[in-house]
Amino acid sequence: MGVTSPLVSETLRSYANVVTDGMARYLPGALGQADLQRYLYDLVADYPRRLGKMMRSSICLATAQAFGARLDIAVPAAVSIELLHNSLLIHDDIEDESDERRGAPTLHKLHGLPLALNAGSALGLTSLSPLLGNGSRLSKRVAVRLLNEITRVGRESAEGQALELGWCRDNRLDLAERDYLELVLKKTCWLATIHPVRAGALIALGVTAELDRFVSFGFFLGAAFQIHDDVLNLVGDHEHYGKELGGDLWEGKRTLIVIELLSRASPSQGRELQRFFAKPRAEKNQAEVDDVLSLLHRHGAIEAARDKALALAGAAQHEFERAFADAPTSRHKDFLSELPTWVFERNS
Amino acid sequence: MGVTSPLVSETLRSYANVVTDGMARYLPGALGQADLQRYLYDLVADYPRRLGKMMRSSICLATAQAFGARLDIAVPAAVSIELLHNSLLIHDDIEDESDERRGAPTLHKLHGLPLALNAGSALGLTSLSPLLGNGSRLSKRVAVRLLNEITRVGRESAEGQALELGWCRDNRLDLAERDYLELVLKKTCWLATIHPVRAGALIALGVTAELDRFVSFGFFLGAAFQIHDDVLNLVGDHEHYGKELGGDLWEGKRTLIVIELLSRASPSQGRELQRFFAKPRAEKNQAEVDDVLSLLHRHGAIEAARDKALALAGAAQHEFERAFADAPTSRHKDFLSELPTWVFERNS
Repeated sequence: MGVTSPLVSETLRSYANVVTDGMARYLPGALGQADLQRYLYDLVADYPRRLGKMMRSSICLATAQAFGARLDIAVPAAVSIELLHNSLLIHDDIEDESDERRGAPTLHKLHGLPLALNAGSALGLTSLSPLLGNGSRLSKRVAVRLLNEITRVGRESAEGQALELGWCRDNRLDLAERDYLELVLKKTCWLATIHPVRAGALIALGVTAELDRFVSFGFFLGAAFQIHDDVLNLVGDHEHYGKELGGDLWEGKRTLIVIELLSRASPSQGRELQRFFAKPRAEKNQAEVDDVLSLLHRHGAIEAARDKALALAGAAQHEFERAFADAPTSRHKDFLSELPTWVFERNS
Repeated sequence: MGVTSPLVSETLRSYANVVTDGMARYLPGALGQADLQRYLYDLVADYPRRLGKMMRSSICLATAQAFGARLDIAVPAAVSIELLHNSLLIHDDIEDESDERRGAPTLHKLHGLPLALNAGSALGLTSLSPLLGNGSRLSKRVAVRLLNEITRVGRESAEGQALELGWCRDNRLDLAERDYLELVLKKTCWLATIHPVRAGALIALGVTAELDRFVSFGFFLGAAFQIHDDVLNLVGDHEHYGKELGGDLWEGKRTLIVIELLSRASPSQGRELQRFFAKPRAEKNQAEVDDVLSLLHRHGAIEAARDKALALAGAAQHEFERAFADAPTSRHKDFLSELPTWVFERNS
């Protein structure tokens, strides 16, 4: 793949300001109500304040503008996406027993599981508010359609998360590449890429727009993004990555990298891996994790996964041309067209 | 209080059938996808299939009809309420570390915390679907207003849950009756009584209806309901109650009964109680719980709370006459008018 221009990082930065301001409206304080502030609203506002990449909301804003909508019309949908994303992160971090998020301890590590879970649930329903509020210039028909899209995203995300958690809980190793891709389609792509593109197009083109033409682009882009994320989890730079390195191995996640390894390991290595993955996080130790990491390198599993991610990014570029053919040239369209390359350049 | 006619139990039973059928439409199987069925959809459908009292959805259906709407117009809102309620039960049971729900182990006891949490989150967003679907005959304006009401309910419920969890986590004993009533207003009343009445009236009377007139009735009824529930938790009949008896003491909940006890205990008893409530659930034992239970009886704390609940139910009856003055006589109105008496007759 080539190297992106500064367009992607500049666009992400400028949209981050717009979306952060928009989110702040839905993250109120509880003036004079110290207990509500301390037990709920401080927690609800924490992840949004840690400032993520804003990739999801930026894809929505760029798509809407690429098809002719004004920025301000699309902001509520972008804010809604980012709030829902942060809500699911809180719950995912609990489910995965993750330690770090965006360079700081996870919310349940800071406040205990019960209050963190509750804050995540609160943020989930709050994510609808931008689409329902008086500030939104969306028509009621478009708003209702967007809410329908969000219930779809919620279902897909929950299905993906259920597969990942179930496979870990039951120590399932009977998995192939297609299982991983189905997982990623649901767990990652619907919220991260497919919905943002569909929402942006819906806002610009109205409820008669044909939205399914964007699914393939979103899937290929999101899958490349997730596989690169899995790679960063193993070989990234901790300072930029913001999560503990090797966390996926501690958590027992069935990444494409692990599936590649399982298909290459010798029978005795396979039995060793089965014992490793059968252990709950608390019973694993660093030496065992290091052993698996060195097996991954020895069998070229990381490289193999990276190659597949590159192929997916190529497919995303191809699908982009098809799905956005009738959008005129613009910097919004350019931004979107550079994303399949950008996903490999980021280190966080 | 008097004794209710069979009207309440008969009405609840007949609405239960309607709402159960309605819920089933939003609790799909995953045909041919065994992993999704086993890791998500079996879990999502579990609590709804355990058949609760259906009080919440019945209040909505009765209010809508009392003000002149047809039953079928109100069903989507009633189904939505029951789905949201079940979603919050799953999360609350995790947060409270509860063991039993509706006569069976809680969802996280059956499937582990991660998959149960994920199923609860999925059900939360699913609860919007009845209001958005093609099957609904609600106007878009009413649907959007109902969704706004639901985000309000979600916020109030999360605030109430946050107060309860925070008070437990920090072993707060500096609480008075008004703190408990604020907690119950948020944790219980908005979803259990206030929203169902408001939603029913909104459906029947349209978006110009004045809904705040129903808040007092809902608050008094819901508070009486919750206090009676707290009493059943201590002195109920396990077979009917469906949760472990004394569970609130194991979980350290700040019920009105406990607040009454703290205000009546001697200084040395107060210190004893402080030590008891400071312990996490796993460090408490049955003898300690029995000691607190006998203190509650000795100081008349349960009776005192029951008296307050009776006064609240009386206030609910008074508020009912005011808020429903312009609804003509009907069996729907009669059903609602009997609820303040019914809340004390139920044993589950």
